Amino acid sequence: MRKLIFGGANSLDNFFARKDGSVDWLLFNDEVAEVMKGSFDNVDIVLLGRKTFEVALKHGGGKSQAMPGITSYVFSRTWKESPDPNAQLVTTDAVEFVRALKAQSGKNIILMGGGDFARTLFEADLIDEIGFNIHPVLLGSGIPIFFEMSRQIDLQLIECKTFKTGCVLVRYAVKHR
Amino acid sequence: MRKLIFGGANSLDNFFARKDGSVDWLLFNDEVAEVMKGSFDNVDIVLLGRKTFEVALKHGGGKSQAMPGITSYVFSRTWKESPDPNAQLVTTDAVEFVRALKAQSGKNIILMGGGDFARTLFEADLIDEIGFNIHPVLLGSGIPIFFEMSRQIDLQLIECKTFKTGCVLVRYAVKHR
Repeated sequence: MRKLIFGGANSLDNFFARKDGSVDWLLFNDEVAEVMKGSFDNVDIVLLGRKTFEVALKHGGGKSQAMPGITSYVFSRTWKESPDPNAQLVTTDAVEFVRALKAQSGKNIILMGGGDFARTLFEADLIDEIGFNIHPVLLGSGIPIFFEMSRQIDLQLIECKTFKTGCVLVRYAVKHR
Repeated sequence: MRKLIFGGANSLDNFFARKDGSVDWLLFNDEVAEVMKGSFDNVDIVLLGRKTFEVALKHGGGKSQAMPGITSYVFSRTWKESPDPNAQLVTTDAVEFVRALKAQSGKNIILMGGGDFARTLFEADLIDEIGFNIHPVLLGSGIPIFFEMSRQIDLQLIECKTFKTGCVLVRYAVKHR
């Protein structure tokens, strides 16, 4: 079965953006580019919560970029139509939708962005792998990656490597119940 | 000048204890014992916030252990006397007290426990180094290591190593303003 992978870049205090959504603190280099390319090579679906999507649109000048071979879904219970031709809107139950996606054959699925939507999928035990590029900074405030959850999620370390930027990449498999 | 070091064990979602203060999820082995011994070899003062101290006392059956060669200070504005003979109570301004301690000659100073007291010392730019043993678990809830701060703290990665337990040890120098 295809894997659902949650991840991104974070600060050591676990924010993935400042409160206004800005990510000016991100450290990018050739090592990160290589890891990102590797991550997306085996992916054909990207999932975004409504809040993450709004932040992404805002910082992309109101537009997203089409990613060849990748279908993007944005989840919202209130929107009537997608504000972006490159993202399909899902208004039905997210857990059931994602469970059905995972049961289809295909490549892996990446969940991008923040905690509210991720929490729902963690609690439904649908996330198989997580990976973070921990940046050498305490932002002090921002949009959190992890929200409080009703239960503990046990992890198994798959990989840990450091970049020249001082970032630490960690990857874990989620131990399913 | 002696360094003020903040650190401990945390979950990937940055709790250092469950909400009731329990740390049953900690993974201990010979590698961790060696790192902890190394950390304390060059330390002669331990600082604890009142909340952390209460949690420690509760889980130590109401008693602490004297650490030879180490002076412990617990900070509280409300207590009249220390509940423990092994910890000296500080009721005066914590920032001024810690600044004076750092100006004395001596070994390094370790700040243990949680976020509220650490935030005060971060914001006063008194913390020189941080180190965490990141455990492979999302606790979902608990006592947070980091509290929201009024400013960003830039870090420089000093060390990153993995343990057989799947824990990741990270150490950073704080870039002072």
